[in-house]
Amino acid sequence: MCVLGLGLIGGSVMRAAAAAGREVFGYNRSVEGVQGARFDGFDASEHLDEVLGRAAETSALVVLAVPVPALGLMLGHIRDAAPQCPLTDVTSVKGAVLEHVRSFGLQERFVGGHPMAGTAHSGWAAGDAALFVGAPWVISVDDHVDPDVWAHVMTLALDCHAVVVPARSDEHDAAAAGISHLPHLLAEALAVTAGEVPLAFALAAGSFRDGTRVAGTAPDLVRAMCEANSSQLVPALDRSIELLTAAREALARHGSVADLVESGHAARMRYDSFSRPEIITTVIGEENWRDELAAAGRAGGVIRSALPTRDSRR
Amino acid sequence: MCVLGLGLIGGSVMRAAAAAGREVFGYNRSVEGVQGARFDGFDASEHLDEVLGRAAETSALVVLAVPVPALGLMLGHIRDAAPQCPLTDVTSVKGAVLEHVRSFGLQERFVGGHPMAGTAHSGWAAGDAALFVGAPWVISVDDHVDPDVWAHVMTLALDCHAVVVPARSDEHDAAAAGISHLPHLLAEALAVTAGEVPLAFALAAGSFRDGTRVAGTAPDLVRAMCEANSSQLVPALDRSIELLTAAREALARHGSVADLVESGHAARMRYDSFSRPEIITTVIGEENWRDELAAAGRAGGVIRSALPTRDSRR
Repeated sequence: MCVLGLGLIGGSVMRAAAAAGREVFGYNRSVEGVQGARFDGFDASEHLDEVLGRAAETSALVVLAVPVPALGLMLGHIRDAAPQCPLTDVTSVKGAVLEHVRSFGLQERFVGGHPMAGTAHSGWAAGDAALFVGAPWVISVDDHVDPDVWAHVMTLALDCHAVVVPARSDEHDAAAAGISHLPHLLAEALAVTAGEVPLAFALAAGSFRDGTRVAGTAPDLVRAMCEANSSQLVPALDRSIELLTAAREALARHGSVADLVESGHAARMRYDSFSRPEIITTVIGEENWRDELAAAGRAGGVIRSALPTRDSRR
Repeated sequence: MCVLGLGLIGGSVMRAAAAAGREVFGYNRSVEGVQGARFDGFDASEHLDEVLGRAAETSALVVLAVPVPALGLMLGHIRDAAPQCPLTDVTSVKGAVLEHVRSFGLQERFVGGHPMAGTAHSGWAAGDAALFVGAPWVISVDDHVDPDVWAHVMTLALDCHAVVVPARSDEHDAAAAGISHLPHLLAEALAVTAGEVPLAFALAAGSFRDGTRVAGTAPDLVRAMCEANSSQLVPALDRSIELLTAAREALARHGSVADLVESGHAARMRYDSFSRPEIITTVIGEENWRDELAAAGRAGGVIRSALPTRDSRR
């Protein structure tokens, strides 16, 4: 297999795949990254055409691990040099990536992915073969996806010791807006609001520290993820504003925040007791396998060991 | 000194004061609390009039540690039996308590307090002599406060090994709205919004867990603190809604959340580098001592060892 981009995520995929016994080679734009990978004993090059030629020859699974702004350039090279290779990615917003891939006509061999792991650091040196252990790795089950490529990507995620969550790209993005992008904006709003009150920082403790922790993330990173998912984030913001406005009115008029507090507590309790059943009955490639997996993922289901494919059952 | 109410906070004050070598006795409404305290070797009674009579005879500092709904009843008894005793409290919303105290004509001997410590448990058994070690203990410096009573309350807080933050009652309540009550409502709104998105709980990780942690607090407790501070919480909610609405518009129209993200990050950075200088130059009771302490507290200043009083300087 072939990893394009050897930063934190790509570099960790390369290490984890190699540790699982896979043959893996990769490309990185900067010579420093390539030298770092080589120094650590990995097969890396800064010559994209050579790397893609080798991927095409060996029908390698190609893993896109470059930042979103570099995707277009990379997809152009793949279309020209390795259009038949199975293709996945490890970036965050799945709808935007899928659109990009479609615009290069590469969707038939593409299955999007999103390993939900990371650290505050970046670059080859920050990578870790154990980064994905136990982490959810979302794999897209959109209507177009090919069962063989899907099984390929699933096996890679399991080789990295992640748990696979099957999900449609649009549902992934709506969920990411609610659990990742919206929390960032709420944390920013809390930091600003409290920061304008004299004495607030002097008294701030646990609930303020927790509530604003992610406001410490570099603004560029927060903007990149929020702005790439605006179509899903806008409705999530609207719903939060609606809830807060209703609570504000109830407090000002009736002295009560009962509705919001009780429904918020109930939602958090549902989350605490949310179960993660293992998905075991689906056969990849059989009728309705995509819908079946999407429904199972929505209900909290995860894949912990490889599901059978139609071919393996024949 | 005399503690009224031997729950988590009052029981901890009794233990900490005794450990500092103070003579301390107390009242608790329930016989269980009294028996628990006696069993642990403390001087406790369920007879309020006896306890207040003894406080009046010895001019003891009286510490109100009953829940807010019981304050009125308790203040009536104090007015009748021990109106000359110096009086403080250890409850959360300072403006509401001060109004209560005023309505019973007891404000001359009253200095409000708020030790910012707690656990999820309650009752005598949950108390701990070390509960206040290193915690901020807000002591009100409103215009009416008497320097001798203030010094009395300061010494109690320092005996409990807290750090004293001087603050006006209204500023304390505005700060509490921003750093404690608003974070609860934002967490509830986040839990509800995400909980309505299929797949969200299946993917939820760090930023959602941190951002909704306080939504796990019992709804009655959250309502009690938010609703008691509604006059300060409403403007804090308004400001947050305004910030989120502006970000929503900027995202929908221009695809950018730069303004909110950059100002939120800057505010959180200011908090991380907020310093806590020690207040050492103020003499309690000298001209402008209240304004001086309020300004120092606002700037992050804390009292770690007893400030001199005008009398001690004579």
